[in-house]
Amino acid sequence: MSDTVVVGLDVGGTSTRATALTLTGERLGTGRAGGGNPTSHGADRAAAELSTALREALRGVDPARVRAGAIGLAGAGRLRADPAGRAAFDRAWSDAGLRCPYTVHSDALVGYASGTAAPDGTILIAGTGAIAAQVRRWRLDRVADGHGWLLGDAGSGFWLGREAVRALLADLDAGRAPGPLGRTVLVDLLGDDWVAERPRDTVDAVVQAVTRRPPVELARLAPLVVDAAVDGEPVAAELIPRAAAHLVTSVGRIRPDDATTPLVLGGGLLTGDTPLGAAVQVEVGRRWPDAPVRSAGDGAAAAAWLAARTLPDVTDPAARHALLVPSAD
Amino acid sequence: MSDTVVVGLDVGGTSTRATALTLTGERLGTGRAGGGNPTSHGADRAAAELSTALREALRGVDPARVRAGAIGLAGAGRLRADPAGRAAFDRAWSDAGLRCPYTVHSDALVGYASGTAAPDGTILIAGTGAIAAQVRRWRLDRVADGHGWLLGDAGSGFWLGREAVRALLADLDAGRAPGPLGRTVLVDLLGDDWVAERPRDTVDAVVQAVTRRPPVELARLAPLVVDAAVDGEPVAAELIPRAAAHLVTSVGRIRPDDATTPLVLGGGLLTGDTPLGAAVQVEVGRRWPDAPVRSAGDGAAAAAWLAARTLPDVTDPAARHALLVPSAD
Repeated sequence: MSDTVVVGLDVGGTSTRATALTLTGERLGTGRAGGGNPTSHGADRAAAELSTALREALRGVDPARVRAGAIGLAGAGRLRADPAGRAAFDRAWSDAGLRCPYTVHSDALVGYASGTAAPDGTILIAGTGAIAAQVRRWRLDRVADGHGWLLGDAGSGFWLGREAVRALLADLDAGRAPGPLGRTVLVDLLGDDWVAERPRDTVDAVVQAVTRRPPVELARLAPLVVDAAVDGEPVAAELIPRAAAHLVTSVGRIRPDDATTPLVLGGGLLTGDTPLGAAVQVEVGRRWPDAPVRSAGDGAAAAAWLAARTLPDVTDPAARHALLVPSAD
Repeated sequence: MSDTVVVGLDVGGTSTRATALTLTGERLGTGRAGGGNPTSHGADRAAAELSTALREALRGVDPARVRAGAIGLAGAGRLRADPAGRAAFDRAWSDAGLRCPYTVHSDALVGYASGTAAPDGTILIAGTGAIAAQVRRWRLDRVADGHGWLLGDAGSGFWLGREAVRALLADLDAGRAPGPLGRTVLVDLLGDDWVAERPRDTVDAVVQAVTRRPPVELARLAPLVVDAAVDGEPVAAELIPRAAAHLVTSVGRIRPDDATTPLVLGGGLLTGDTPLGAAVQVEVGRRWPDAPVRSAGDGAAAAAWLAARTLPDVTDPAARHALLVPSAD
């Protein structure tokens, strides 16, 4: 058992991370590659990134020592229904010299496991998109939102970016001078030296600047909102609690009112010391006062732990979690 | 003067209408053709539809009698900045044998003029999209919304359709059985015989059915919301006042708080005996209790009247309005 290695991978939209751990939590290697969401990039591309990260993490490790592996993946469900994609993942796995089986989990489950070892609880993720999920016996039981920018992602980075532009347009329509956030958004979209003769020309230019790009790129503006909120900017200070309310409403669709299980916060907008994370914690504290709130941490390590859990000689998964998955709190 | 004819055209997204009127309001002819929005269809196509409607309206009328003409057009502003498009309109005009000048107005101004002869007031239009405009001396002075489905059109047909789907998804996420509106939307999107094993599969199928099509087609679901609201369906009954609040918020961005000028309601969702029109009237009555609220009517006749106004022998435009533009109220 002391020789045993477990491998975890966290395949995200912008990066893929791999980690190789012993069961006592010794980190034998880590690897990193580009993003590989099989839904947007295709399973072949995702498998190629996975392969790169995996080889890097396993450099100098005898692959025969690896007895279990797990992959966290946005779009995991679609991969299961995609034999060619699954075959590409199988190839990447065996090309790395691995002979043990691996499992594929949704990124939401891996995010959950990166924050807690509890078998039951809730994960809320807000990054470009937003999704909440209820976990039961380490499986996704029910899901809320994750419906994409056109129909959902309420409270996400896309939502914050879109609402920042909408607030700017409302100011321009009403003939009010935009505030600090509005001016920052204006410069981001139109450049420093852009001047219009009429406010309506500015409105048209803003709408065109946004609609020229894929809609999801509105999420690019979310950090401007977050930074402005930190500075107490009034529009941003109003958007953040509205985003938090949307996110907590999504949680409320799947988490029982009397739940006392952990709630894990994940995604760039909720992890670390962010205003949206703080606003969500306030809302959650009101609605589920007894819920332990945790931050999502190292997804690759959490995936490795999910793999380790399945080994017959791992009898106390919670103790193993403390060794393998560094706490982000 | 009794020989004088004025011509008006209303070029919309789905149809083009033309009318030829004497200054006493005698309707010499009407014409109809397909939609011709120069922004979406191109100016050549718009000019071709205009030509068809114009020739039909002028059948049997000596074109030398036509002394003024006007065209109402969504995207009128862009046509002004488009010399090739403007040339196509010029050709259509002279091909119909017309030698008098014509003016191009935005569809919002023509909609306004179809409801009132007052030089100052407000127009609110809700169809697929939504726009509000303040009119001053028969010109658009300020505009609110009209920003398109990604950033605006709050309270529009697109908005109603999207919110109906969002309400359905919220029910499915929460494990609630959808109500009558949700079931109607489900059948519209997935067909009668669609059955999923798991609610999440239904969610995925709904999201895919919507995202397969151009987003603006969500407006196709708006009549389902309107019909459900007439029947008192609870979700629809909650969406209609929210849409009305959005629309009246847009109006409030451009209409002074103490205005007593007319407010004209246009677009398929607000004209006639519609629940959204009724809800908007309630909100408007609260906010501007002294505002006369009018329904938009015959856009082609209103365009003809806008043309007649410019003739030196038309000295009382309001009296002429009563003759030329049939009241929709």
